[in-house]
Amino acid sequence: MRTHYCGQVDSQLIGQDVTLCGWAHRRRDHGGVIFVDLRDREGLAQIVCDPDRPLMFKTAESVRNEFCLRIAGKVRARPEGTVNPNIASGAIEILCHEMEILNPSVTPPFQLDEENLSENIRLLHRVLDLRRPQMQGNLQLRYRTARAFRRFLDDAGFIDIETPMLTKSTPEGARDYLVPSRVHPGQFFALPQSPQLFKQLLMIAGFDRYYQITKCFRDEDLRADRQPEFTQIDIETSFMSEGEIIGLMEELIRAVFKDAIAADLPNPFPRLSHAEAMHRYGSDKPDLRVTLELVEVADALKDVSFKVFASVANSEGGRIAALRIPGGASLTRGEIDAYTQFVGIYGARGLAYIKVNDVTQLNEAGLQSPIVKNLHARALQTIVERTGAQSGDLIFFGADRCKVVNDALGALRTRIGHEKGFVNGHAWEPVWVVDFPMFDYDPEEKRWTACHHPFTSPKDEHLSLLESDPGRCLAKAYDLALNGSELGGGSVRIHRAAIQEQVFRALGIGKEEAQLKFGFLLDALKYGAPPHGGLAFGLDRIVTLMAGAESIRDVIAFPKTQRAQCLLTDAPSGVDEKQLRELHIRLRQRVETQVEIGKG
Amino acid sequence: MRTHYCGQVDSQLIGQDVTLCGWAHRRRDHGGVIFVDLRDREGLAQIVCDPDRPLMFKTAESVRNEFCLRIAGKVRARPEGTVNPNIASGAIEILCHEMEILNPSVTPPFQLDEENLSENIRLLHRVLDLRRPQMQGNLQLRYRTARAFRRFLDDAGFIDIETPMLTKSTPEGARDYLVPSRVHPGQFFALPQSPQLFKQLLMIAGFDRYYQITKCFRDEDLRADRQPEFTQIDIETSFMSEGEIIGLMEELIRAVFKDAIAADLPNPFPRLSHAEAMHRYGSDKPDLRVTLELVEVADALKDVSFKVFASVANSEGGRIAALRIPGGASLTRGEIDAYTQFVGIYGARGLAYIKVNDVTQLNEAGLQSPIVKNLHARALQTIVERTGAQSGDLIFFGADRCKVVNDALGALRTRIGHEKGFVNGHAWEPVWVVDFPMFDYDPEEKRWTACHHPFTSPKDEHLSLLESDPGRCLAKAYDLALNGSELGGGSVRIHRAAIQEQVFRALGIGKEEAQLKFGFLLDALKYGAPPHGGLAFGLDRIVTLMAGAESIRDVIAFPKTQRAQCLLTDAPSGVDEKQLRELHIRLRQRVETQVEIGKG
Repeated sequence: MRTHYCGQVDSQLIGQDVTLCGWAHRRRDHGGVIFVDLRDREGLAQIVCDPDRPLMFKTAESVRNEFCLRIAGKVRARPEGTVNPNIASGAIEILCHEMEILNPSVTPPFQLDEENLSENIRLLHRVLDLRRPQMQGNLQLRYRTARAFRRFLDDAGFIDIETPMLTKSTPEGARDYLVPSRVHPGQFFALPQSPQLFKQLLMIAGFDRYYQITKCFRDEDLRADRQPEFTQIDIETSFMSEGEIIGLMEELIRAVFKDAIAADLPNPFPRLSHAEAMHRYGSDKPDLRVTLELVEVADALKDVSFKVFASVANSEGGRIAALRIPGGASLTRGEIDAYTQFVGIYGARGLAYIKVNDVTQLNEAGLQSPIVKNLHARALQTIVERTGAQSGDLIFFGADRCKVVNDALGALRTRIGHEKGFVNGHAWEPVWVVDFPMFDYDPEEKRWTACHHPFTSPKDEHLSLLESDPGRCLAKAYDLALNGSELGGGSVRIHRAAIQEQVFRALGIGKEEAQLKFGFLLDALKYGAPPHGGLAFGLDRIVTLMAGAESIRDVIAFPKTQRAQCLLTDAPSGVDEKQLRELHIRLRQRVETQVEIGKG
Repeated sequence: MRTHYCGQVDSQLIGQDVTLCGWAHRRRDHGGVIFVDLRDREGLAQIVCDPDRPLMFKTAESVRNEFCLRIAGKVRARPEGTVNPNIASGAIEILCHEMEILNPSVTPPFQLDEENLSENIRLLHRVLDLRRPQMQGNLQLRYRTARAFRRFLDDAGFIDIETPMLTKSTPEGARDYLVPSRVHPGQFFALPQSPQLFKQLLMIAGFDRYYQITKCFRDEDLRADRQPEFTQIDIETSFMSEGEIIGLMEELIRAVFKDAIAADLPNPFPRLSHAEAMHRYGSDKPDLRVTLELVEVADALKDVSFKVFASVANSEGGRIAALRIPGGASLTRGEIDAYTQFVGIYGARGLAYIKVNDVTQLNEAGLQSPIVKNLHARALQTIVERTGAQSGDLIFFGADRCKVVNDALGALRTRIGHEKGFVNGHAWEPVWVVDFPMFDYDPEEKRWTACHHPFTSPKDEHLSLLESDPGRCLAKAYDLALNGSELGGGSVRIHRAAIQEQVFRALGIGKEEAQLKFGFLLDALKYGAPPHGGLAFGLDRIVTLMAGAESIRDVIAFPKTQRAQCLLTDAPSGVDEKQLRELHIRLRQRVETQVEIGKG
């Protein structure tokens, strides 16, 4: 039907006849001549319709935006002064000989180049939204990125193996999406939250190196960067150490960024222990483009008269951190109020600060703050020394439970860093965070929970801590962050049944429960399971970063809203009573009553 | 941890030190020396453990089958007479210096090289089953095949785009798997039976060429070659004609077979109209390796005294076909009885036949059959002429409703062809079946149903038949069969809203229903939808054929049984009452009662 893509017709084709198919991006009449910008996935070409071919011209006159057209014509250079250097076909135009309307279009609900469309409108008319060059580019980038992952992994001897979508529900961590079984009344499949156990089984089965780019599902409350279904690049390997896995995965990410967007990532990636990341950045996915850092000051504040500081400094599990903002003494009252509100989102009950007006006077004369009078000289001295504060700086404080301080000051660090330009100018700052703890203590449930997941191996030298001091036991777990976003994470897995049982015990999972939920894994571990480990990357997140998109919904063809709905197809939706009956389920409550009435 | 894969150590490495990881495939003691066949995914290597290294030897003595080992040693040539030419490492052995047991194994429930294991045992211990070289090979073949599809499609400018897994239920055709929504009480997602509508939307959105290798779901009663979840290579393109699509897809399949198993498929593939395929082979996926053919004889049997033939010959929708078996006069009574029983599976109420003892005597003397006396000379003459029967042949007859005759004689043709060697000797016989009818008449529901699906375009010249004579309206639909199995099928789609509405009308889908179920497609068609079409291939089926496997379960890592269960993980299974409550559903009947009691 065509000889070229619109966006690929260039000066080399001048004088040749071409046939193009695409959409009328816009039409304009100028001096009795009709110009149509014809658009396809590769770009635009300018079609010139002269009135000297009356039949074709009549067709051109009827063309409106988004009509689907087929045109034949001759490529010629654009007249001087009309060249558009921004597009590949900007130096040429096509003198139209024939025009066929393949399909007309009603008037679209919005112009394709309209900016600031509401997201709801875009999702409702997703098909038109996807015609926008930005969305075309995003999905092509997503494709190139996935392809780059595959190419590297293929070349490195990894085998793509599909694991089941209809699997077993093991309620632990996030909520499962359930699928009622028709054949087995009262029983349910679950959609996988990740292929974790299956990929371990594949290692035990001897496949050695596995990958899969696959959908995973979590029925969670949706945040800006989450979807009920998301795509994971899932990787597992046998017979490699933690360091070897990290090294290979780092190569992979460098290759993918190079291949997909021609970006050069550093070699090697820096590595931070989890403890250091929390200490310096308050985050296990620190944005290393931001040059600001937190410092510890609690030890110097144990005996100050400022109660908030003293009580935290003397409590277990508390933290007092200081964040110096160079030149921050010039922050306005309004800015400081906004930051105070901002840290409130993370649970901080306030945001103490000191303006350093004159660093040579460590008292109320040189330091401006309501709290200075309640801090003794040694405390002020320590704060100024450790933060390296200069005259004109401002120091923010977080004093609370450790988690609150880290979340609040970690987020504040990133926000101020970008707002005020405390960044190092690098486009991409990857960082491995390693040496995660095995367990987090859940004070509500009063038990240890797995920091990664229950199949993560402890460090060899920490095996004995599993029972004696779980809180100090570190794991062979690693996360990769880029510019403050988590790209992925993984771990070396437990490959010995006895250690797996020990970890289940530490997590308070009894023998019977473990057997019921994970019996097939415990069983498989007994047959010479190899040392193995791996990791999973989030494709949606990676492409969002690469594209500089605001939301992962901009790199997914048909995403769900934050209310987990597809506005285009109107899913989820009601179903026939007959379907429910076949699945041996009924609706509860109000909805159920309506169905009952409908039946009666 | 290792320097090489076991299966890749060969004579070129003689004299070198290697480190290998793998599993003890078998261990034998011979003349005071221990031999361990070490296995990994690439094959076996023979490890020789001499007693002169007592520490290592003691370890070797403790090794049992399926222990996971790491060994270091020197490669040397095997002694003459012990070379195994069947494996890559068959000319060498490795003199073991060090041996480490990475993980011991309890005694496996079966030997890996045991044949004739029950499938239930294999699925229950799937991890061990997957260690068998045959299963390793099948899944590697599956991987290579999928990769070959991707490579061709990538190179041909197709873009891999993911479509949603949580989508809208449109009960039509097969049963949907449903997923209750937690956020929207009483509403459900459906798992996709195919990405059909989404790929059409992607064409309308201008992506031009799309593919995806993706899971699809059908909650159907399972036959030997079906799974609740199966993998489809889904393809769609804009601006290509039916013939161009067929041509490109044929190239794709040739490239994939060449790439994955080095097989040369014919070029071009033969094409048969649907009518001709049914006429000559009784099947829309004929096995062209079989040289037998059906012939039509009803027209000569309208006035015979054999009632079964005469009544079918004079009925509408009936067919009488003859199938000549060369040399078939020697078939035994028992064989003919078995065939008669066989066609019964397809609904045939009997299997009339004539043994041609002497083709020069077209009467009870030369033709042996209870029905000959009830067929007049002209009928017998026609039968012999059309079938080309020779002395010593046998002719089977099918006389019934067209569908029964096609199913029964079509299957019989294939069975006898392979059993008795009426095959052309070609390994691979692909064939396109084209010109499918638009509609099948469903006599029970008394309405037309879509032969492909409701989005298939009628032939341009048959548009007017949509309303006047739907039964004669042909579609731009095509199926690809290989050796009697359907590899895939597709069609050019309807790209004009008005024609789509006409087809919905012909199918008895009212305006309101169409809007409710497919409104988003009808809406999208109005915005300059391009001409488009595509197809989907079944990956499981293709790999099963390539591997010569008995069941698609042999090319799937973790398949479901024919009762739709995963024996390994015991899915589906019961779930917590809390989970059901969150999903706003409850169980029906007996199961429900138990839960209620449990709550009380």
